[in-house]
Amino acid sequence: MAPFHCLTFLTDYGLEDAFVAVCHAVASQIAPDLRITDITHLIPLGDIRRGAAVLAQAVPYFPPAVHVAVVDPGVGTARQGVAVEAGGSLFVGPDNGLLSVAVAAAGGAVRAVSLTNRALWRETTTATFHGRDIFMPVAARLAAGLPLEEAGDLVEVTSLVTLPPPECQITAGGARVEVVTVDGFGNVQLSLPGIDAPRAGLIPGRTVTLTWDGRDVAVPFVTTFGEVAPGEPLCYRDSGDWVAIAVAGGDAARRFGLRAGTRMTLIVT
Amino acid sequence: MAPFHCLTFLTDYGLEDAFVAVCHAVASQIAPDLRITDITHLIPLGDIRRGAAVLAQAVPYFPPAVHVAVVDPGVGTARQGVAVEAGGSLFVGPDNGLLSVAVAAAGGAVRAVSLTNRALWRETTTATFHGRDIFMPVAARLAAGLPLEEAGDLVEVTSLVTLPPPECQITAGGARVEVVTVDGFGNVQLSLPGIDAPRAGLIPGRTVTLTWDGRDVAVPFVTTFGEVAPGEPLCYRDSGDWVAIAVAGGDAARRFGLRAGTRMTLIVT
Amino acid sequence: MAPFHCLTFLTDYGLEDAFVAVCHAVASQIAPDLRITDITHLIPLGDIRRGAAVLAQAVPYFPPAVHVAVVDPGVGTARQGVAVEAGGSLFVGPDNGLLSVAVAAAGGAVRAVSLTNRALWRETTTATFHGRDIFMPVAARLAAGLPLEEAGDLVEVTSLVTLPPPECQITAGGARVEVVTVDGFGNVQLSLPGIDAPRAGLIPGRTVTLTWDGRDVAVPFVTTFGEVAPGEPLCYRDSGDWVAIAVAGGDAARRFGLRAGTRMTLIVT
Repeated sequence: MAPFHCLTFLTDYGLEDAFVAVCHAVASQIAPDLRITDITHLIPLGDIRRGAAVLAQAVPYFPPAVHVAVVDPGVGTARQGVAVEAGGSLFVGPDNGLLSVAVAAAGGAVRAVSLTNRALWRETTTATFHGRDIFMPVAARLAAGLPLEEAGDLVEVTSLVTLPPPECQITAGGARVEVVTVDGFGNVQLSLPGIDAPRAGLIPGRTVTLTWDGRDVAVPFVTTFGEVAPGEPLCYRDSGDWVAIAVAGGDAARRFGLRAGTRMTLIVT
Repeated sequence: MAPFHCLTFLTDYGLEDAFVAVCHAVASQIAPDLRITDITHLIPLGDIRRGAAVLAQAVPYFPPAVHVAVVDPGVGTARQGVAVEAGGSLFVGPDNGLLSVAVAAAGGAVRAVSLTNRALWRETTTATFHGRDIFMPVAARLAAGLPLEEAGDLVEVTSLVTLPPPECQITAGGARVEVVTVDGFGNVQLSLPGIDAPRAGLIPGRTVTLTWDGRDVAVPFVTTFGEVAPGEPLCYRDSGDWVAIAVAGGDAARRFGLRAGTRMTLIVT
Repeated sequence: MAPFHCLTFLTDYGLEDAFVAVCHAVASQIAPDLRITDITHLIPLGDIRRGAAVLAQAVPYFPPAVHVAVVDPGVGTARQGVAVEAGGSLFVGPDNGLLSVAVAAAGGAVRAVSLTNRALWRETTTATFHGRDIFMPVAARLAAGLPLEEAGDLVEVTSLVTLPPPECQITAGGARVEVVTVDGFGNVQLSLPGIDAPRAGLIPGRTVTLTWDGRDVAVPFVTTFGEVAPGEPLCYRDSGDWVAIAVAGGDAARRFGLRAGTRMTLIVT
């Protein structure tokens, strides 16, 4: 593929250490003109599902790029590192499902390799920091124009690890859904695409009753936060166009005890 | 105006999500050579006053730039988005007072437009993420040389929302002031300019008695933190040259229960 | 020296204020093409030892660069600011030991100057923000090619403040060591180089008993986190190749009450 000018970087490395900067340094020495954009490094440690959700939210806004993501509780064990081509971009990271949501949203994997070409790695590699030792050096070389197939052995795209898609059933006047992710403010993104909201009866002005774990709450379906009073809950189509639940000026996840994977019924009245 | 090489970005978006990166991506695609500097994204959610204070602290150190600031509890409601020219720079964000302190410090608004030219927005816009959908795309185009008046309808600069200036009265041997902002370490910036400190009797070596909410504390007026013992309070001229209160190695705001808007009397003895 | 293309920046300024951005702005105006990489700005306030450890971890991965570090509880007092040449790079910051570990790891100081040339500082300087007023402007000029000796008076490299090296004695079947630093996840780096681990009997498969403060814990010596169950402690060679203690998916420092300076005996069985 043609060289890429942009590399994005998402991890659970945190911001208190030099880990992220060291990865930048490694990439910059291989590809000095590459623009590196940090997506976030505050994915909760080892939370693959959350990392996958945030990566998938970010990717659509970038030009064709090399996307490096590292949330990798299995680092140093048998899980393989991969580079996956999808939608004109490359995705580099552990094959543990982290990349799968973004890859699917980009149209699905076209080709993939296992990162077995050790000549592209740092000369000495460790068992605990593949971001620095493997993923970044390989990604920077791919960005600089290295053909994908030179990064390692081709693998069947159907063999890549994928996260199970969250439940979403639209019913007459409602839906059965799942919490996909919770953002840094406690806004709760559900598995119902905004574009399908009207089919489920979700129209501004209606009230939707949310039922989960034997509990229920009725909230207005609105267009924006400013339509409810501070402290009041709301249901809306979020900025990624998913149906979501929030509290104006508050934290809906904490208030209602919701987290990724919580199953919920929506009934519109 | 001539193109700008620098765009700054301040929000309350936090660092746990992809929001900031997505805005960078949007701007970079419009103006690939633009240097984007993040001021901070940890303004407390919806705290316009704090956002305005931090923006005003940062702007004087930048060359002419496009400053994008988004602390926007009214996103999606009737408040307008604006671009304001002041001091050779442009300020882009919601018209809710957030820009007003920096604009005033830059010499006041020369021209302003309401961001009504939808041709400059993202093709689909949402009611909750104007940073991505409106402010960044318009700001990037302005940075690339788009004339201000093409961003929307000219508005009277006197009609822009401004924050009320904090109280500051210098008296014989003291002052009546207000807490303007509290930084990340709990240092408390007052509304008294450092240059006016001598007129209020604040001279290194003196002691100043702070009185607020029926409480008083006497602290030394010094030049730097190292002049008091760890854990001791001090009054000084801070790095932005405002009179401020701190605790050496500690958090003055927490220790004394101070926050933006607290009114206080200073009496020098 | 030849100009540098890269400047790194490490501080305890935090991310809630404009302090870091202001320093970037100051440097960029002096050296517009300089690539500035933030190492971290979340060093605990005034923790020179932690700052020194993180700086030393990061530097080896960068090309020759100007490294600016500011953890400076003595700002505004008699401590001097310095620029130190070591290993082809320059280190700029307060002379309080912060730079010393990285300088030693880079091969030791070759030359050093006290930053006495006020013509290179910002026109007005404050007693509390030398990062903005002195260190960044001088560092940016050094990066742009200013000869080191023009930044101030040459000082004897032996006169520079250094942190005492942590204790490390390898014994028959063990070692006496010290905790050097704790990373953002609570992983505990000891003063024993990984390369010396075999000499101390630390070989994958063995068990090592850690004794400190009258307490002891036996943990397996392994290659990577995945070899122990979640929640279990381990001893391993970390990504900087130091012997370290961790808890899989947990915080070893909190769990065992360990912090920089804790002395510990390792006995391998």
